[in-house]
Amino acid sequence: MTTELYFEDLHPGMKFPSIRSYKVTAEEIKAFAENYDPQPFHLDEAAGESSFFKGLAASGWLTAAIVMRLRVESIKIAGGMIGAGVEEIRWMQPVRPGDSLHTEAEILEVRRSASRPTFGVVRSRTITYNQREEVVMRSVVNFLAPVRETT
Amino acid sequence: MTTELYFEDLHPGMKFPSIRSYKVTAEEIKAFAENYDPQPFHLDEAAGESSFFKGLAASGWLTAAIVMRLRVESIKIAGGMIGAGVEEIRWMQPVRPGDSLHTEAEILEVRRSASRPTFGVVRSRTITYNQREEVVMRSVVNFLAPVRETT
Repeated sequence: MTTELYFEDLHPGMKFPSIRSYKVTAEEIKAFAENYDPQPFHLDEAAGESSFFKGLAASGWLTAAIVMRLRVESIKIAGGMIGAGVEEIRWMQPVRPGDSLHTEAEILEVRRSASRPTFGVVRSRTITYNQREEVVMRSVVNFLAPVRETT
Repeated sequence: MTTELYFEDLHPGMKFPSIRSYKVTAEEIKAFAENYDPQPFHLDEAAGESSFFKGLAASGWLTAAIVMRLRVESIKIAGGMIGAGVEEIRWMQPVRPGDSLHTEAEILEVRRSASRPTFGVVRSRTITYNQREEVVMRSVVNFLAPVRETT
């Protein structure tokens, strides 16, 4: 679906599955960690083995960034998806090298913005699964969508 | 301070300022966006000008990743800082090329973990400022810290 969505197009209960899976490599896990989360269990297989994670694991912030990528590809908001805040992120399972992630986003709630009258606020929950359909992350995020008819 | 911190060392009201500022470049904003948030206002100055953000702006997920970097450098948890979930992220101001970010984290609450008896759960709020001391992001994150004395 390439139609751009406006606030009026979005209703509670609508679901947006990701349009593909995202394969996570050891290289990406380590490169992200070097930049943003330089902890042994995100940087090195051997250090990961002796850690809480029992192996190399992706930074939860890498997983969150990949989830944003999958959401942006599958929910095409007119003018772009502008974040209005995160209500919750839970990391349920480690993300490992070779894991393939996909998401399903659901619209929970929509309301006109009080502070920005040409926008609505869309509350959404996204469940992120690995290739075994295990939930690796749950999140609730608000974003803005422009109102089509501004009177 | 290089001492590694255990659960017993952390108390509500303790504050951890970042040990440095993090300079955000246009290159990093665009590179992150290409990988994880490929929207025009994060990829291109001209597209940014005509957008909601009125100029090139960092993805909120890049800002969140930079905040993790600054937190990991300033709060040295024994065995590493393991995320136990996000309760809130609010992006208050766009982050622009050339901005220099610093953080202050505060411990809000500590409690032993019911499900993991050798860990405690630490609830923390982090305020992220730019070089004009404007708040660009607020977040509340829980992390695990190992208990020193396990009986």
